[in-house]
Amino acid sequence: MDRLLPCVGALRLVDHHCHGVLGVDLDRAGFESNLTEAGSVSPLGTSLFDSSLGLAVRRWCGPLLDLPPLAPADEYLARRRSLGAAEVNRTLVSAAEISMFLVDRGLWPEGFAGPAVFTGSRELAVLRLERLAEDVVPAGASVFPARVREALNSTGAVAAKSIAAYRVGLDLDPARPSDAEVVAAADRWLASGSGRCADAVISRFLVWEALDRGLPVQVHVGYGDADLTLHRCDPSLLTDLLRATEPLGVPVVLLHNYPFHRTAGYLAQVFPHVFVDVGLATHAVAHQASRVLAEALEVVPFGKFLFSTDAYALAELYYLGALTFRRALSDFLSAGLREHAFALADAERIARLIGWENAQRVYRLE
Amino acid sequence: MDRLLPCVGALRLVDHHCHGVLGVDLDRAGFESNLTEAGSVSPLGTSLFDSSLGLAVRRWCGPLLDLPPLAPADEYLARRRSLGAAEVNRTLVSAAEISMFLVDRGLWPEGFAGPAVFTGSRELAVLRLERLAEDVVPAGASVFPARVREALNSTGAVAAKSIAAYRVGLDLDPARPSDAEVVAAADRWLASGSGRCADAVISRFLVWEALDRGLPVQVHVGYGDADLTLHRCDPSLLTDLLRATEPLGVPVVLLHNYPFHRTAGYLAQVFPHVFVDVGLATHAVAHQASRVLAEALEVVPFGKFLFSTDAYALAELYYLGALTFRRALSDFLSAGLREHAFALADAERIARLIGWENAQRVYRLE
Amino acid sequence: MDRLLPCVGALRLVDHHCHGVLGVDLDRAGFESNLTEAGSVSPLGTSLFDSSLGLAVRRWCGPLLDLPPLAPADEYLARRRSLGAAEVNRTLVSAAEISMFLVDRGLWPEGFAGPAVFTGSRELAVLRLERLAEDVVPAGASVFPARVREALNSTGAVAAKSIAAYRVGLDLDPARPSDAEVVAAADRWLASGSGRCADAVISRFLVWEALDRGLPVQVHVGYGDADLTLHRCDPSLLTDLLRATEPLGVPVVLLHNYPFHRTAGYLAQVFPHVFVDVGLATHAVAHQASRVLAEALEVVPFGKFLFSTDAYALAELYYLGALTFRRALSDFLSAGLREHAFALADAERIARLIGWENAQRVYRLE
Repeated sequence: MDRLLPCVGALRLVDHHCHGVLGVDLDRAGFESNLTEAGSVSPLGTSLFDSSLGLAVRRWCGPLLDLPPLAPADEYLARRRSLGAAEVNRTLVSAAEISMFLVDRGLWPEGFAGPAVFTGSRELAVLRLERLAEDVVPAGASVFPARVREALNSTGAVAAKSIAAYRVGLDLDPARPSDAEVVAAADRWLASGSGRCADAVISRFLVWEALDRGLPVQVHVGYGDADLTLHRCDPSLLTDLLRATEPLGVPVVLLHNYPFHRTAGYLAQVFPHVFVDVGLATHAVAHQASRVLAEALEVVPFGKFLFSTDAYALAELYYLGALTFRRALSDFLSAGLREHAFALADAERIARLIGWENAQRVYRLE
Repeated sequence: MDRLLPCVGALRLVDHHCHGVLGVDLDRAGFESNLTEAGSVSPLGTSLFDSSLGLAVRRWCGPLLDLPPLAPADEYLARRRSLGAAEVNRTLVSAAEISMFLVDRGLWPEGFAGPAVFTGSRELAVLRLERLAEDVVPAGASVFPARVREALNSTGAVAAKSIAAYRVGLDLDPARPSDAEVVAAADRWLASGSGRCADAVISRFLVWEALDRGLPVQVHVGYGDADLTLHRCDPSLLTDLLRATEPLGVPVVLLHNYPFHRTAGYLAQVFPHVFVDVGLATHAVAHQASRVLAEALEVVPFGKFLFSTDAYALAELYYLGALTFRRALSDFLSAGLREHAFALADAERIARLIGWENAQRVYRLE
Repeated sequence: MDRLLPCVGALRLVDHHCHGVLGVDLDRAGFESNLTEAGSVSPLGTSLFDSSLGLAVRRWCGPLLDLPPLAPADEYLARRRSLGAAEVNRTLVSAAEISMFLVDRGLWPEGFAGPAVFTGSRELAVLRLERLAEDVVPAGASVFPARVREALNSTGAVAAKSIAAYRVGLDLDPARPSDAEVVAAADRWLASGSGRCADAVISRFLVWEALDRGLPVQVHVGYGDADLTLHRCDPSLLTDLLRATEPLGVPVVLLHNYPFHRTAGYLAQVFPHVFVDVGLATHAVAHQASRVLAEALEVVPFGKFLFSTDAYALAELYYLGALTFRRALSDFLSAGLREHAFALADAERIARLIGWENAQRVYRLE
């Protein structure tokens, strides 16, 4: 950590997008299946510890569990089990030194807890829109629009989140659907017998309704698991919707974006209400995060870029999400200072904006 | 500047694609709205000085106006106003040390002047095709093809330029449209009452007619303002049109290209008449230009890559366009020399080709 | 070569995808037309020696022919001719130090020889599926499915290869076509009089039939010559087919991938049967291969990445394919070691997996 610029080492971080922490002990298969976006370990492809992220777990998390750096994966997992999930989660999530978490509780299996449980820091809710739709649609298609609005009116969440990328892709018609269209879509959905919200009309309706209420909307973009099709998650596909929603003046925050992070930066530059991050990618690429973050920061205004871990299930991912981000941000700023592209006060301002000030402004925190 | 290789520091530069310089004094909002591709400053996103480009203005342009490097933005703008636009424009455009400008006069608000006014260097015209169409279509649909041809026959321009990317996207039918199709399209356009050329048949017609007359055609690709949709500006969408126009043997020059600059480089490698640049991106990413330029130079033959600033309105952008390009090119060549990938004579040849020889050959200058 | 880590300098390499070596002497035009993916030298664009690859030929291959590094192109070509193709091929292919070649014999003009002829190493066959279809379709549409199956049943090849990217693009319907559909497609093909397999139904049929027999299928993706359209060669377009074929548990290997190598890495992470390489790009970008390889290795598990040259015709490309790969891999590993991202044993394991172990597992070699 000694390579960190002081203004990054001491930087307050608001994690504006993450998930819950799994509180149960894991065997090797269980651990690996949560490590990356792969659903399970491939017998054809060796172990998922053979990856940038797997190396980072052994390199950085091992020492926090009193192992030498880069102890073998089996030793790491044995030590993890002997300490127990509660102790490991407390140690690793605390070590992330994150001041506040915005947590998407949309996918929340048994045994999950919010990360703030382990740190005593503050936790705020992000409402997953598709989950909301799935919760209220059983009441019937005709009342579906009203039920969605009621839920949004009374939510305590600071933001909403759309996973349209996973369900219908991002090539959304920008028009606000009429209630009649929404009811018809809910009708089709109920008739299909599926519990899963996977209808473009409903996805658009949810985004518009959230923005109407001044709720910033986070949108999954790019990198994720095998349920998505990457070229349908190009943020550029959202352009018409971004044009249509710009007059509302409510933030739309593009999450992850890898490998479309340059395209996302362009959108954040030209649309006043668009913000971006490279969460998930940062720890996924681990020791290579400096290049990815530098690319992401090419054209995006520094007032439009946010920090997130997108950590899910494994406490390691909170810690590594924060660590790889801090190292990459420090490298970015150090490189600029070294060639006198900006002064120390500029570096400090950029760090502050990205670490927490942008999140505070976007989500109107405190 | 002392890090520049001598062969780059003394390099003659032909800016094969830029715009006019604004001759009026600007307040902060006016300056920022011309600084990046954002239409205006976002109240949600701090200042556009919080960007790589904003830092570069303070770092590099400030000292030319007798300020210390990285003086605050407000000081910079106050100094700029106290000197007056004429003096600032002369100072900054001259400092770019560009030997010749090819200027697109298609967007030329009141108060614009050609950059050569400030330097005494030579200026040649690039004819914006959509603007030509907009100028001649009021004469009537039936005479539209003939009027376009007459104008192209008598143009003093050294190249034509298409902004089809902005108007209809780059996924153009490659076929040369018949006059009957063009007249029908002009008819529809006139009936629409719009003054704006936004018809794919007409875009194709304009490109074909310019190439028929041996006029190299510059095509806007990739990065630009919020009027375009980035995935519709992927240069690969032009592939069929490039195949169809290859037999004419007239250059097609893909402009900007970011973030599709690798795809553009591929097209320049495999199509004999295709050339590329990374104008606009170079100063937009500012101190990070070395990586973008290096990527752009991965597979493109060095005989197919050109320098441009794509500067518009602000004199800062001519200076920074040339400065960031020179630094990035020098970094590229120095890195190659350092690992003995090529010899000094090779570096000098690459610099010469990219700086001006390719432009001279493509546009038959002198 | 002295910058290579010992574990890379001594690394066994299995080239899992390459072509034949041309045994005839070449003039400058003949040499240049085989050097890059350009079909011929452009009079508009100087020489193809003005490229990263052209410089690498002069830098690295010259000294193996007893010329000083970076001797002029004409000297290099004169020396090449005076030694004769047989001697040059033996020298350069041997210098690649490749232990085993998997050779696609689908495009095999007169004068071609397998690379192992020059080295005494082992050579295995990859069956080009479109070539197989072209060979058997003249027997008639009704027997086409059976003839394809017979050929696949009796092939001695260790893998099949699809060039659907070139013929129909990668946006393939994932469904296994029925025999009736295949016969109808073969009928249409025969009626067209074309000798060329360019039908999506047949492409899909060939891939499914190969996988059914446990034959790993290599798929051309991304970078290639002017016959392809790059955006139709995005590996993400294969997602539905990858989902559909996953249950078979037979490897699908995405070749080249540039500039979509990050997308390919994502697919290799989330689909258990998907593997990737950056063959062709490695020597095409030459001294810049380190960045491309590092990007390709961001999210791909190290158990899913393979080495290939994709060398075709020129012996230089085998040597440079191996050399640029070794240097780039060594740079990747050295950078990680330098910042203690992993230990030497990890670096050695990653090198071994990528150099030959993954190929051995995927193709069940030995």
